[in-house]
Amino acid sequence: MFRYLLPSIVLVIAYSSKQHSAVLSSIAFSLVGYVVTDLLIPRVGNSFIKIGLYGKDLSKVGRPVIPECIGAICAAVYILLMMFCIPFMFYKYMVTTTSGGGIRDISTESYQLTDNLFPHAKLSEYLSSLLCLESTALLGIADDLFDLRWRHKFFLPAIGAIPLLVVYYVDFGATHVLIPGFMQNWLQRTNLDLGALYYMYMMSMTIFCPNSINILAGVNGLEVGQSIVLGILALLNDSLYLTMGPQTSWESHRFSAIIILPFLGVSAALWKWNRWPAKVFVGDTYCYFAGMIFAVVGILGHFSKTMLLLFLPQILNFLYSCPQLFHIVPCPRHRLPRFDENDGLLYPSITNLKETPAKKFFQPVLRALHVLKLIHVEFVNGEIVSCTNMTLINLVLVWLGPMREDRLCNTILQLQFVVGVVAIIARHALGALLFGHDNLWAIV
Amino acid sequence: MFRYLLPSIVLVIAYSSKQHSAVLSSIAFSLVGYVVTDLLIPRVGNSFIKIGLYGKDLSKVGRPVIPECIGAICAAVYILLMMFCIPFMFYKYMVTTTSGGGIRDISTESYQLTDNLFPHAKLSEYLSSLLCLESTALLGIADDLFDLRWRHKFFLPAIGAIPLLVVYYVDFGATHVLIPGFMQNWLQRTNLDLGALYYMYMMSMTIFCPNSINILAGVNGLEVGQSIVLGILALLNDSLYLTMGPQTSWESHRFSAIIILPFLGVSAALWKWNRWPAKVFVGDTYCYFAGMIFAVVGILGHFSKTMLLLFLPQILNFLYSCPQLFHIVPCPRHRLPRFDENDGLLYPSITNLKETPAKKFFQPVLRALHVLKLIHVEFVNGEIVSCTNMTLINLVLVWLGPMREDRLCNTILQLQFVVGVVAIIARHALGALLFGHDNLWAIV
Repeated sequence: MFRYLLPSIVLVIAYSSKQHSAVLSSIAFSLVGYVVTDLLIPRVGNSFIKIGLYGKDLSKVGRPVIPECIGAICAAVYILLMMFCIPFMFYKYMVTTTSGGGIRDISTESYQLTDNLFPHAKLSEYLSSLLCLESTALLGIADDLFDLRWRHKFFLPAIGAIPLLVVYYVDFGATHVLIPGFMQNWLQRTNLDLGALYYMYMMSMTIFCPNSINILAGVNGLEVGQSIVLGILALLNDSLYLTMGPQTSWESHRFSAIIILPFLGVSAALWKWNRWPAKVFVGDTYCYFAGMIFAVVGILGHFSKTMLLLFLPQILNFLYSCPQLFHIVPCPRHRLPRFDENDGLLYPSITNLKETPAKKFFQPVLRALHVLKLIHVEFVNGEIVSCTNMTLINLVLVWLGPMREDRLCNTILQLQFVVGVVAIIARHALGALLFGHDNLWAIV
Repeated sequence: MFRYLLPSIVLVIAYSSKQHSAVLSSIAFSLVGYVVTDLLIPRVGNSFIKIGLYGKDLSKVGRPVIPECIGAICAAVYILLMMFCIPFMFYKYMVTTTSGGGIRDISTESYQLTDNLFPHAKLSEYLSSLLCLESTALLGIADDLFDLRWRHKFFLPAIGAIPLLVVYYVDFGATHVLIPGFMQNWLQRTNLDLGALYYMYMMSMTIFCPNSINILAGVNGLEVGQSIVLGILALLNDSLYLTMGPQTSWESHRFSAIIILPFLGVSAALWKWNRWPAKVFVGDTYCYFAGMIFAVVGILGHFSKTMLLLFLPQILNFLYSCPQLFHIVPCPRHRLPRFDENDGLLYPSITNLKETPAKKFFQPVLRALHVLKLIHVEFVNGEIVSCTNMTLINLVLVWLGPMREDRLCNTILQLQFVVGVVAIIARHALGALLFGHDNLWAIV
C-alpha cells in the first residue's frame, strides 16, 4: 500500500509547493539517500560485527547473529546529504540576480545587499535542526556502544534541542495555546500564554519522541516501519496545507517536507535490509534519530500538537507499558513476543506472577483489563499466576492470535496508519468545532 | 610557563573585549568544561576498555593497556557546553530592552522587532561552526572504531565544512588576496580575486588542519599539548587585535576567543590525564576535532592565512614526512621513537634500508640531509643501510640526543611556541613591509 501512497504524496507536494526549488532538490536528494544507504549497508555489516556491534535475532531458528546499530549509517548519510543540500536550498538567494549568461550582479563587492536579502533566519532554522539531529545521532551511537543508563541519557536530547529552542524563541516566540470556543466566554480570553511552560513542553517533546519509538520495538522492521508511516502521515498533513491551506502556512510545511523527504529516502533503504527476515538491526541510534526528526519538524514547523497526535500509537504503547515500566507489575528484561520454533509463529510473551506478584492495589485492575481483553491473565484457583507483557505488540497477538513476524509487523503498521489518518481528520474536524475555525481553511 | 601565560592572556582578552558578555560567558564555560571533563575521564575509562577502545603504551615498561579515544569525551563536553552557551551568548539580543525589574518590553507579541534586531548572521556563524565540529567529532569516532581507510575518510571533513563555507559565502564572500607592494606596479592591481579557488583553499584547510595534528603524534601528551599551544598562540593574536587593532576586527577576534576558550578548558583536563605517564590516549577523534577548531576559527574569523602560519611546525613535519608518506623511502607501520627499557629513554627509530632501499634518485638527497644533520644515516662500506624515520619527533632526538618521553614532549611544545611567536611577529612586521600597511595598526 505504502509503495503507491508515498510516490503520490511526493508528487502532490512537488506540485503544490509550486515547484519550490528547495523542495525539488530535497526530493532529488532523498533518491540519492536511498541509493547510497542501500549500497553502504551490505558493505559495512562485517565491520560492525568485527567491533562487537551485533545482536542475536531471538525470533528466528538458530538465533542468527546480525549487525546492530546500522541506523548510524542512515543518520550519517542523511546528515551528509543535508549538508550537501544547503547550497542547492539557498541557491536562489545566493545568486540573487543575474544579467544574462549567469553573471552575478550582486557580487562580493556589494555583499551588504546580499546580506540583507539572504534569509538568515531560515538558514539558522535549518542549521539548528541539523545540529539537533546530529547530536541525537551521537547520543544514539554512545548508547549503542556503552549501553548508557537511563539517568545518564534521559535529559541529553533536551540539551541537543537548545539550538532549536533558541531559534524558536527568536523567530517565532509564540507560546500561547488557543482556548476552545465553549471555554472562551467562561475564561474571558481566546488564548492562554504558557510562557516558559511552552518551552518545557517542547523540551519534553524532544525527550518523548525519540524514546517512544525506542520502546515500540522488537519485531523485525517495526522501528523503521513506524518511522516511515509517521513520515508519510506528516507529509500527508503537509500536502493538505500546501494544497488547501492559507499561504502563511506554506513555509512551515515546505520546511517539514524538506526535512522528512530525505529521511524517508534513507529509511526506505534501511527498511529493505531490516524487514523480515532482518539482515541488520537498526539500533538505538536509528530510533532516537527518527524520533528527533519528527520533534524538530513539529517544533520548527509550528504544529507540535498535531505531530503529537500522529504519535498516538506510541503514546498509547507508552501508557499501556507504564505498569511494567514503573514496576507495579514485574517487568522481565525482554518483553518480545515468544517465538515457537515448531510452527515459526510469534505468541504473546508472559510475565510470571507466581513468585513476585503484581502490587496488591493493581490486582483488580489486572482482572478488569483481562475482562476488557486488554491483556490475557492466567488464573489458578482464582489467583493470578501470569499475564501477558504490556506492549502494543503483545496486545495485537492477544487480539488476533499467534502470527508470523512479518504479518505482525505489517498489522501494527496498518493499525498505526489508520489511527494516524483518523487523527488528522479528527484534528481538522474537531479544530473547527472547538475553536470555531480551523487553520487549514483560512476562509472559514 | 603556559600555566602563567594562559591566565594572563585570558585576563587581557576579558578586559580588552570590553567585558563583552559573550566572551565572559565563554570564559566561565571553559572553567566548567575543565571541571566536567576532568570528572568524566577517570569514570569512563573502564567502559572504553570494555568495548575494545584501548591501546598499548609502547614507550613504557610492560606496555600497559590504557583507554583509547578519550578525546571523544572532550568533544562531547565541548559541544554540549557550546549549546548551553547559546542563550547566554545571545542573551542581550533576546532580552533587548527592559523597563526595570527585568520586565521585557519587547515581548512575544512584538516579535517582529526582535526579529530585526537579532543578529541572525552571527547565530548562523555559531551554529555552522558547531555543526562542522560535531561532524568532525563523528568522523573521528568512526575512524577510531573502524580504522577507516584513507580514501574513505580523506574528503569527509570537507563535507562537514559545507555549512561553514555557505555562511562564509553569504556573510563575507571575500575571495581576494592582497598583492605585495613591490608586485602591485607590475600587475597593475592591489588585489587578486581567487573566486572559487579561494573556496577550494578553505576546503583544503579543513582537510589539512585535522590531519596535520594527527601525524604529529605518538608521544604522551603531544597531541593535546600542541593543540593547547596552538590555542594559546591564536588567543595571543586575538588579544593583539582586541587591544591594538581597529574596531572592525574586534568581532572576528571575539568570535575566535569564544570558540577557542572552552576548547582550551576541555583540553587542559585531557592534558592532565594524557601527559606523561599517560593514563589515557586521545584517539583520532581529538586530533580531528582540535584541528577543525582552528580551521573553523581561521575561516570564519577571516585570518585563515595567519592561522596557517601558526601551523608552521605541523606543516614542516608534514613536508619532512613526505618522502616516507609517498613511499620514496620505505615507511614502517609505526615511526614512534624507540623505547629503551634499560635507561627509560627514547631514541630515534630507524628504517632498515638494506632489503628495501630508498628510491635511487632519492639516495643523494638522503646523503645531503645527513650532512645537514636533518636525519641520521648509517653507512656500511659507503652504502646506506638505515636512516632515522622522518618525523619532527625523531628529528628532535637526532639533534638533542636520547631523552625521557616527558622532556621530549615539552621540548617539542616549547619549540612550537617559539616558532609560533616568531611567526606572529613576522606576520605583522612583514605584512607592513610587503603590503605597505598591516591590518593590526589601522592608522599606518
